[in-house]
Amino acid sequence: MAQGANMADDAARKRRSGGRAGHRDRAGSAVIDQMPWRQPQNPDRPTEPLDGDGVQAIHRGAMRILREIGIEFLNPEAVEHLRRAGCKITGTNVRMDEDFVMEMLSHAPAQFTITPRNPAREIIIGGRYMSFVNVSSPPNSWDLERGKRSGDFATFQEFMKLTQYFNCIHIAGGYPVEPIDIHASVRHLDCLYEKLTLTDKVVHAYSLGRERVEDVMEMTRLAAGLSHSEFDEKPRMYTNINSVSPLKHDFPMLDGAMRLALRNQAVVVTPFTLAGAMAPVTMSGAVTLSLAEGLAAVALLQFIRPGCPVAIGTFTSNVDMKSGAPAFGTPEYMRATQMTGQMARFYGLPLRSSGVCAANVPDGQAMWETSNSLWAAVQSGTNMVYHAAGWLEGGLIASPEKFVMDCEVLQMIQRYFEQPTWATTDDDIAFDAIKDVGPGGHYFGCAHTQERYTNAFYAPIVSDWRNYEAWQLDGSVWTAERAHRIYKAILEEFVPPTMADDHRGALQEFVARRKQEGGAPTDF
Amino acid sequence: MAQGANMADDAARKRRSGGRAGHRDRAGSAVIDQMPWRQPQNPDRPTEPLDGDGVQAIHRGAMRILREIGIEFLNPEAVEHLRRAGCKITGTNVRMDEDFVMEMLSHAPAQFTITPRNPAREIIIGGRYMSFVNVSSPPNSWDLERGKRSGDFATFQEFMKLTQYFNCIHIAGGYPVEPIDIHASVRHLDCLYEKLTLTDKVVHAYSLGRERVEDVMEMTRLAAGLSHSEFDEKPRMYTNINSVSPLKHDFPMLDGAMRLALRNQAVVVTPFTLAGAMAPVTMSGAVTLSLAEGLAAVALLQFIRPGCPVAIGTFTSNVDMKSGAPAFGTPEYMRATQMTGQMARFYGLPLRSSGVCAANVPDGQAMWETSNSLWAAVQSGTNMVYHAAGWLEGGLIASPEKFVMDCEVLQMIQRYFEQPTWATTDDDIAFDAIKDVGPGGHYFGCAHTQERYTNAFYAPIVSDWRNYEAWQLDGSVWTAERAHRIYKAILEEFVPPTMADDHRGALQEFVARRKQEGGAPTDF
Repeated sequence: MAQGANMADDAARKRRSGGRAGHRDRAGSAVIDQMPWRQPQNPDRPTEPLDGDGVQAIHRGAMRILREIGIEFLNPEAVEHLRRAGCKITGTNVRMDEDFVMEMLSHAPAQFTITPRNPAREIIIGGRYMSFVNVSSPPNSWDLERGKRSGDFATFQEFMKLTQYFNCIHIAGGYPVEPIDIHASVRHLDCLYEKLTLTDKVVHAYSLGRERVEDVMEMTRLAAGLSHSEFDEKPRMYTNINSVSPLKHDFPMLDGAMRLALRNQAVVVTPFTLAGAMAPVTMSGAVTLSLAEGLAAVALLQFIRPGCPVAIGTFTSNVDMKSGAPAFGTPEYMRATQMTGQMARFYGLPLRSSGVCAANVPDGQAMWETSNSLWAAVQSGTNMVYHAAGWLEGGLIASPEKFVMDCEVLQMIQRYFEQPTWATTDDDIAFDAIKDVGPGGHYFGCAHTQERYTNAFYAPIVSDWRNYEAWQLDGSVWTAERAHRIYKAILEEFVPPTMADDHRGALQEFVARRKQEGGAPTDF
Repeated sequence: MAQGANMADDAARKRRSGGRAGHRDRAGSAVIDQMPWRQPQNPDRPTEPLDGDGVQAIHRGAMRILREIGIEFLNPEAVEHLRRAGCKITGTNVRMDEDFVMEMLSHAPAQFTITPRNPAREIIIGGRYMSFVNVSSPPNSWDLERGKRSGDFATFQEFMKLTQYFNCIHIAGGYPVEPIDIHASVRHLDCLYEKLTLTDKVVHAYSLGRERVEDVMEMTRLAAGLSHSEFDEKPRMYTNINSVSPLKHDFPMLDGAMRLALRNQAVVVTPFTLAGAMAPVTMSGAVTLSLAEGLAAVALLQFIRPGCPVAIGTFTSNVDMKSGAPAFGTPEYMRATQMTGQMARFYGLPLRSSGVCAANVPDGQAMWETSNSLWAAVQSGTNMVYHAAGWLEGGLIASPEKFVMDCEVLQMIQRYFEQPTWATTDDDIAFDAIKDVGPGGHYFGCAHTQERYTNAFYAPIVSDWRNYEAWQLDGSVWTAERAHRIYKAILEEFVPPTMADDHRGALQEFVARRKQEGGAPTDF
């Protein structure tokens, strides 16, 4: 089954990449020999801890929360829509029954595409497709040279270059660091200008008030040289909203989500439910709460624009019960992600999860926690992996070294998905080669190897596979330091993607005008 | 299904541990708060890249190798057995047909137990049971203080203490470092004496000649105070043999395997097939070759002692095609391990795989490579994980820091297997708690949390979950350095397991006598 799915994937991939499907068909960079751009597909059957009864128990729990407890919608417009939809309204509390929720879910597409200004960077959200998003929203950065610092615009630009440079990063998500040296009223204008010119990948708008959301949609439209109707025709960008767990959706998040939905742009709804803090201490309880919150918002969006592109996100982890500190990449996190994957398939919705860790520096702990969360993303059938590269300290730090190191893991996941790693044609079984080489021989020189060796195996970017002595002679450089050197070299050779002069001009004009108008309110 | 299996596991575990089943039922150590001793069971459905045709293709390939190419058995006694069995013999080349192989495999138990001197440390090999083995056989050690050094006896002892100390290490496998300061003729005597007195876990004999194998069996018997017939009654220890890929089994490995099989002791057959070097460059080709070699030895052992306990091992990775250096924990390694897991289930044999990396120091690369291999072990349904803690540099280095760090990952895997992480009883779904806390509240103080928080989540041993500032105030200690401190502290507080004086006396007497006799030949 996996094999059949992947062969179809291969054909699709060849079409999408113009025939360049070999995984060593490198980008030809001087700094690293990375994999070419492609969107991977996950051929594996998901890992499913829940049996049918477990799925039903969580579903019943979520429906009961929505029906008996209700969700606070702190947005009068949203409440008004839901009143019209027949939900039970008490002030800001909205209760909805299962029939309504399931009917609304039936409108949601199981899969959709987002097309950025460069159509070759189109991303499919849903099915077996997976996409990796850069680290988003840390207030601070950390690197080996400068340690921990508050986010600034120069560092923001560095991360946007890394986001564009790495082919295994498919989406330019939230701000990789919050640039606090740019005034909040115009920050979104400067940030989106940089994002739209330094990258040509799918971009994201924070739902932080009407003006910002509208500005970002307009800038995304201008950067692609689209008419308003062309923009509305299909998803061109997306927002990610978080509920205020437990049981609340705040005003600006709902406002932004509704604005995007009405223009057919994508909305990801990601409750942040830390078991033991803002969610029950039991993992299925935290997942149930998360789903109730997520489905409530999805139902609203499907009511106001049936068929609009939506996904649910999971951000269910646990706290350290000694200190209350959030923990990430834990066994409990992995199971919560897998359970939410089962529920996303049950509801027919695409799934977002994350690459996460609690570690403060890009060391061993950082990589086992991140590996745990990234493999949980694979096992859960996640479609969109937020924070897939660069995250530290539970999301309070973005690190360029970690970014490079994570991209190694992401590339390995992409290679792991490729059918040649488990193909069993006669050529793969290699009986004739085994006979020819015979006992005591070796395969370095045989024709079977010679014909295949350039593309046979994953080639690393930051891993050092030399023996200890060769590694020592070269300075005994640990992984984080090697990643630091690669990050610096990438910035030096970075070339921004092309952009038509008139599109750039229109963008610049828009930013200048909006700055003159004072930007957006800062009382959010 | 997973849930049902695990509930049965829970009951079995409670019986086995005398009712102490809570994962936070700690050992009470002053140094670390580790999980109690237990043998984990893997509740997950394996990840299976091969479809039915793929399984058949590999099976047919392996059978064709055995029938048409044959395996070199460099051991006249083995050849004589196989001649009697009706195999086609040409000098040392043995060809066997599918009917014979499958008949022999039908004798092999799908599951067996190994009972060491402390019966509470009994280990089940097969089914959903998983066990973790210490790093085995590196010629060198490395630690943060002393760097890379040749193995010596003092370092051997340190690792035996770590092997005993960590409850998540179930088996005291090969020598964690080769103690080259002990003469080879008596090395096995000193090493096994230390292993049998510093640990009470399942031990292993190297198949390096008749005398060593017989000595280790005798010492294992004496350490447990068993009669000869009690020893033979069931598996008390095991050996692991490697073929000389491609297509060869050497004299001492076969000799040792046959000696153990005839006394009902366990044999693991692990070909080391590096794709592109001693095996085909294609992963399924390397797996096919590995299986042919492994099944040939299993068939021999089942012929001479039908029903003897055997397992097959996979050690199929790939080389770096630029340098020829072995690579570990790669995407190709993961798929090879998963494919071999499918074939092990097809043949009804328990599976051994490994925790591996190519990294030279316990840094980020070490942990993503090790995580890849350990999760592949989980996904493949591996029963016995060799080198599960402490391995670096492709097996050329054993590191105590890496040992501690790997044990964190192993504990997380054990916790990941525990049913409470995905339970969905009404108490888990927590509707009442969600209703009571309501919107905007938090769960820290509620009764539902208070009743559960001590056992709710995995508690780490070396991970630092504090925020950056707390971590910085405490000296900005990276993971490897924290692991170093823990390793030193463990050695300081280490208390060997108890052993009856007469058993110890018998062991000492045996070692003294065998030393006086000159030990074992060193011309192997």
